Amino acid sequence: MKRKVVLAYSGGLDTSFCVMYLSQELGYEVYTALANTGGFTEEDLKKVEKRAYKLGAKKHVNLDITKEFYEKGIKYMIFGNVLRGATYPISVSSERIFQAIAIINYTKKIKADYVAHGSTGAGNDQVRFDLTFDVLAQGINIITPIRDMVLTREYEINYLKQHGFEADFIKMEYSINQGLWGTSIGGKETLRSEQTLPENAYPSQLQKQGEEILKISYEHGEISAANGKEYQDKVKAIQEIECIASRYAIGRDMHVGDTIIGIKGRVGFEAAAPLVIINAHRMLEKHTLTKWQQYWKDQLGNWYGMFLHEAQYLEPVMRDIESFLQSSQRNVTGTVIIRLRPYQYTLIGVESDFDLMKTNFGKYGEINKAWTPDDIKGFTKIMAIPSKIYHMIQEKNRKK
Amino acid sequence: MKRKVVLAYSGGLDTSFCVMYLSQELGYEVYTALANTGGFTEEDLKKVEKRAYKLGAKKHVNLDITKEFYEKGIKYMIFGNVLRGATYPISVSSERIFQAIAIINYTKKIKADYVAHGSTGAGNDQVRFDLTFDVLAQGINIITPIRDMVLTREYEINYLKQHGFEADFIKMEYSINQGLWGTSIGGKETLRSEQTLPENAYPSQLQKQGEEILKISYEHGEISAANGKEYQDKVKAIQEIECIASRYAIGRDMHVGDTIIGIKGRVGFEAAAPLVIINAHRMLEKHTLTKWQQYWKDQLGNWYGMFLHEAQYLEPVMRDIESFLQSSQRNVTGTVIIRLRPYQYTLIGVESDFDLMKTNFGKYGEINKAWTPDDIKGFTKIMAIPSKIYHMIQEKNRKK
Amino acid sequence: MKRKVVLAYSGGLDTSFCVMYLSQELGYEVYTALANTGGFTEEDLKKVEKRAYKLGAKKHVNLDITKEFYEKGIKYMIFGNVLRGATYPISVSSERIFQAIAIINYTKKIKADYVAHGSTGAGNDQVRFDLTFDVLAQGINIITPIRDMVLTREYEINYLKQHGFEADFIKMEYSINQGLWGTSIGGKETLRSEQTLPENAYPSQLQKQGEEILKISYEHGEISAANGKEYQDKVKAIQEIECIASRYAIGRDMHVGDTIIGIKGRVGFEAAAPLVIINAHRMLEKHTLTKWQQYWKDQLGNWYGMFLHEAQYLEPVMRDIESFLQSSQRNVTGTVIIRLRPYQYTLIGVESDFDLMKTNFGKYGEINKAWTPDDIKGFTKIMAIPSKIYHMIQEKNRKK
Amino acid sequence: MKRKVVLAYSGGLDTSFCVMYLSQELGYEVYTALANTGGFTEEDLKKVEKRAYKLGAKKHVNLDITKEFYEKGIKYMIFGNVLRGATYPISVSSERIFQAIAIINYTKKIKADYVAHGSTGAGNDQVRFDLTFDVLAQGINIITPIRDMVLTREYEINYLKQHGFEADFIKMEYSINQGLWGTSIGGKETLRSEQTLPENAYPSQLQKQGEEILKISYEHGEISAANGKEYQDKVKAIQEIECIASRYAIGRDMHVGDTIIGIKGRVGFEAAAPLVIINAHRMLEKHTLTKWQQYWKDQLGNWYGMFLHEAQYLEPVMRDIESFLQSSQRNVTGTVIIRLRPYQYTLIGVESDFDLMKTNFGKYGEINKAWTPDDIKGFTKIMAIPSKIYHMIQEKNRKK
Repeated sequence: MKRKVVLAYSGGLDTSFCVMYLSQELGYEVYTALANTGGFTEEDLKKVEKRAYKLGAKKHVNLDITKEFYEKGIKYMIFGNVLRGATYPISVSSERIFQAIAIINYTKKIKADYVAHGSTGAGNDQVRFDLTFDVLAQGINIITPIRDMVLTREYEINYLKQHGFEADFIKMEYSINQGLWGTSIGGKETLRSEQTLPENAYPSQLQKQGEEILKISYEHGEISAANGKEYQDKVKAIQEIECIASRYAIGRDMHVGDTIIGIKGRVGFEAAAPLVIINAHRMLEKHTLTKWQQYWKDQLGNWYGMFLHEAQYLEPVMRDIESFLQSSQRNVTGTVIIRLRPYQYTLIGVESDFDLMKTNFGKYGEINKAWTPDDIKGFTKIMAIPSKIYHMIQEKNRKK
Repeated sequence: MKRKVVLAYSGGLDTSFCVMYLSQELGYEVYTALANTGGFTEEDLKKVEKRAYKLGAKKHVNLDITKEFYEKGIKYMIFGNVLRGATYPISVSSERIFQAIAIINYTKKIKADYVAHGSTGAGNDQVRFDLTFDVLAQGINIITPIRDMVLTREYEINYLKQHGFEADFIKMEYSINQGLWGTSIGGKETLRSEQTLPENAYPSQLQKQGEEILKISYEHGEISAANGKEYQDKVKAIQEIECIASRYAIGRDMHVGDTIIGIKGRVGFEAAAPLVIINAHRMLEKHTLTKWQQYWKDQLGNWYGMFLHEAQYLEPVMRDIESFLQSSQRNVTGTVIIRLRPYQYTLIGVESDFDLMKTNFGKYGEINKAWTPDDIKGFTKIMAIPSKIYHMIQEKNRKK
Repeated sequence: MKRKVVLAYSGGLDTSFCVMYLSQELGYEVYTALANTGGFTEEDLKKVEKRAYKLGAKKHVNLDITKEFYEKGIKYMIFGNVLRGATYPISVSSERIFQAIAIINYTKKIKADYVAHGSTGAGNDQVRFDLTFDVLAQGINIITPIRDMVLTREYEINYLKQHGFEADFIKMEYSINQGLWGTSIGGKETLRSEQTLPENAYPSQLQKQGEEILKISYEHGEISAANGKEYQDKVKAIQEIECIASRYAIGRDMHVGDTIIGIKGRVGFEAAAPLVIINAHRMLEKHTLTKWQQYWKDQLGNWYGMFLHEAQYLEPVMRDIESFLQSSQRNVTGTVIIRLRPYQYTLIGVESDFDLMKTNFGKYGEINKAWTPDDIKGFTKIMAIPSKIYHMIQEKNRKK
Repeated sequence: MKRKVVLAYSGGLDTSFCVMYLSQELGYEVYTALANTGGFTEEDLKKVEKRAYKLGAKKHVNLDITKEFYEKGIKYMIFGNVLRGATYPISVSSERIFQAIAIINYTKKIKADYVAHGSTGAGNDQVRFDLTFDVLAQGINIITPIRDMVLTREYEINYLKQHGFEADFIKMEYSINQGLWGTSIGGKETLRSEQTLPENAYPSQLQKQGEEILKISYEHGEISAANGKEYQDKVKAIQEIECIASRYAIGRDMHVGDTIIGIKGRVGFEAAAPLVIINAHRMLEKHTLTKWQQYWKDQLGNWYGMFLHEAQYLEPVMRDIESFLQSSQRNVTGTVIIRLRPYQYTLIGVESDFDLMKTNFGKYGEINKAWTPDDIKGFTKIMAIPSKIYHMIQEKNRKK
């Protein structure tokens, strides 16, 4: 009986090569599985399925995990205002983890002998797949033909051609990786330090001039409405916001980060919805959370983003951080008003019943009755004590 | 003999009232002192001095502490990439501390009996003055007429007029507070949550269209050159960068923060130079520092900014944090290329001999010889161990 | 109609004075309330009640909040391994908060006009009462006769005597403050830095020689059994452990800490149960939590203890931290074996189904099959990369 | 010409096997080097040298790095109060790093082709050697015969015997690893979770009864005197303190920690001097540092210990942390009085000119003139504001 292997299949050149290689050279029954986190349309999915069978897959499945990606990943990235290096919403890398989980669960479900992925040996994705597979299914061996054989594009195309498969595997000038939470872009500029991506490297182009107001409403930290239209399906809300905001070509930047394997990596991205959603969310939190809630959220959100990026999503501390983040959102309810303009946006203001600024208590910079000059004097006098004693001691010892 | 009081004098209505009040009503010898951190021109200073004498000051001094403000404050805010709430370079508030230190030192030098400031009882500045005075000169009483008597503008203007002093104390629609490290703007929008400042509230208006390249060079974290022109005097470098960047109306935003006295406060600001300098500096650090250096710098820089903002500059932990920040800058040397456009700017890239990305070691995403597929597999396998054991234990207990 | 005041009453000299003073001098109807967090026996409570009426209280109530103190305070202090300065289980100070909450809730319930407490102006307790009252009942004025009038013991005793009340308010050499979560001790040694408390200052004396094994079982971080005997009532479990452990005179130490008002304060304490329970709990966590769970628990537990100590229990971030801590305890289930000896104890070992050490996975220091030498080499090679690149860059620049 | 290899040689069975194996089987010129961090006496060193030559070493050197270990390691561990898991002074593991650095520097100095160590594949030490070698000398291959061949004791002894070398390689019941900063102990109890080491497993036995006072003086955080006797040589001071304290069998405990390779590892240790020195140092800091200095020192000291333990000593962030720690010690000067008793010690008190408690400023719990009741009321009122507003907002929304 043939051994079964589940292959994480995307329809691209590398994984297409793997289908054929695993089946023809290694003699396995190949089960291809595409874990969709929102980057594939229905049409894409059909095309990929057809290709899988053509390449010799025994069976192909499309695993739709978009909602799971939102519920278990994006939601907490919003709660935590996760932007690596103060700019990058770990757009695609966060998806890999959920794809890997879906793939390994499917592998276990159909009792396959092996699991395979098409990552090269140069990047973060190999670690994300390997590590997640390893944690969740210790007994199942991992097969990685592309990494192990260090193959070139030409070799792979030729191999497929010789085995009767041809397709338009066009080498793009920029490698584009599109997903629900943003698009990453690699190219010659990202391999060096000195230059930025040219305008045409970005998939979304500037389509609108002038300005436009966008209102995003949140309930307990989750998007509840866009421009007043309510959304039960948060995935749809994100797509709608992306649609509105991306016409202004906003949310573009480049990030230089520390890869899991320790070298520096540079990546371009466009992520209109993620950036607008996160920064508006943070603005709402400035109004509805106390200083120390924000302080600790920053610490934990930053760590959450780092661990998610570095394939440590399954570390149990992540569940503890999620509990903290969830708790912190109980008052993060309200609407943020954003002004979109070409290449930039401005956070205009906030409307919230939980706005800690909007009280009868006293307005900053205005005379009020919530405290007296003497209260402030007492407060300051006591607050000064530790430094005051320290400086007294310094003075005393200096004189000796 | 008359008692001596040193008054922190800015030339504005509140402190002008204080000069006359302290001298005529309380019968003190009033020594006015203006501590300039870069917000006053030579001409301004002369005007202020003249006014002080006219109001009855016994003696006026201008204390130029711009360099000290850079050396002891701005420098570390750059090292620490200090932006409160991810946006506000604590523009004016950081100056107050150094002003307060200069004033109290002058008070001690001339052996005055009292020290006075003109802050109201509604904001952060009163705490900054009181606390700094209190820590550095325990024996000297602090006099604060404006806060204690809760006076209106009209009352003050009338009082001055009745005592023979008139000046154009125009009530501006927006209160503007200009300094070397940015300009803060208050007005009716900052008292509420929903709106942003109108274009005309900003002192700097958009003057240039198109785009322009700006190159900032850093040496051990400090600005060494702007567009290739070297600067020994870092204050001049900041002023030059402000001059170039402010024409594009960049560095504008509003911040909602937690004031020292615990309520939320909203402030508008324009700070073209601070934002460009800090974000370019952070970009250079992404290339020249390791992940963990950046991680800890973020923590400590954030705390440094919070304490500086909250009048805790004299807390001894601040000196320890400065030591950390100084040490962290040993390799932060290189040039950052920035593209300025109306209302926005882009960090293009970095040129540095200390660029950790620019090595023969291996490029992210490219095949290289620094490691083998097996190295990565081993790495991932070991890295997976803690989560793997945890999930095994969960599995085992679930089955029970 | 007389105005109503609720007084936090403990039966001691200061609060006894307050009962009479508030009723006779200020003409209020005095409602005395004792909020018991476990430091009072039934007999104590009766005695206090009788005294209250004798002093002129309109009505006395005993509010039993021991369980609440456990559920809302002690539980999280155990989860967070809260020891200030690595030694002090904030024994009594944590109780004050829950007492203050009970008092102010009672005040609101009976619609009293005022709330009063007997704290002096020298310590932390005044802040704990004031702040909690202020947060939970903004409209109700706080009366503090002892603080405001700065009275001596002699004055208070005389006043009571002149008004017909005499009692044995003996001035103890050491002020003892006993509670469920430990006993604090103040005396002449705690006012200076050089000496420790003498043996006789401690209420519990060494009663047993030799050694004894104590087993504490935890379930999701909470004590479930002591020496195999199960406890639903966690308060009883703590009392039983205190009873066993205190005979060995363990859990004694002195702590020098930073008070809320900014000066240093020294306190002696004995807290046999808290120290044994917390340190055993921490040991169990070393076996059942991952490195990063422990790392973040340490951060958050430390902050939780600091804020609880500093009267910030009602800050909303505390609820978020509690969520984190609760989540972290899901596997903290097992039994810890402790050896008690005079003045010291040793954590012998741990038995737990969730022990991450007790796996078939591989034992530290022993040959095993979970990884190969090559895995470790790969792991180390990749782990070395950031430092390796840094040192290469240093080398390169040094040679220039 | 023969290839040169430098072998980290300790004189034990594993490394003795390596000398012969590398020279006879692989045909290398073997340069043995012992990097002494204080665990070897003069006599030991001579014995090891003799053995090296007997086994076929081309040349043997003893590298005395005890002072370097103090200056670059122990000093900062004291400054940072480094105790892993609140108990373990990373006794032996910290030494490995400095040994590895000495070995690789010697390797580069004599231009050897290879460097070798005798670690097995089961523990942390292999990572410490590999990683340090890799960072500091990228071109030099690392040879690890014991790890690679997975040899047994019997095999190694037989091999040596067959090649004419015999010695008393006695298999001890407990593996003891002695160094300047403590002794680690492994044995059957450390492989499991439930038991502690028996009394006889500890090299130092209880030698004294009764009690004894020990005074340790610090200057800027470094030990300056023990019992009044001044020490320029800090290594000698540590040895003297160890000599005094170890007679009371103190500083013993077991630690369960997370190893570099991710599994849990348990270790017993005795470290009388390190524990007394660190805990006394921490006590002195409680008196001489502010709350926030201690807070940040805890964070950074903890990280420093973790990274030192995990072979990350060469990470550049460690130099930044050292700068912080050094700065923090400027006032850590004074004498700590410790009472030693069998199996335990008590920190009695502190004498210091920098004692922040010992001021004319005001004593905790006593009436004083540094502040008034009204100051405290004002302070508390302002401090309450954030929580007060939050609870008002909660109330308002609850009523809706």
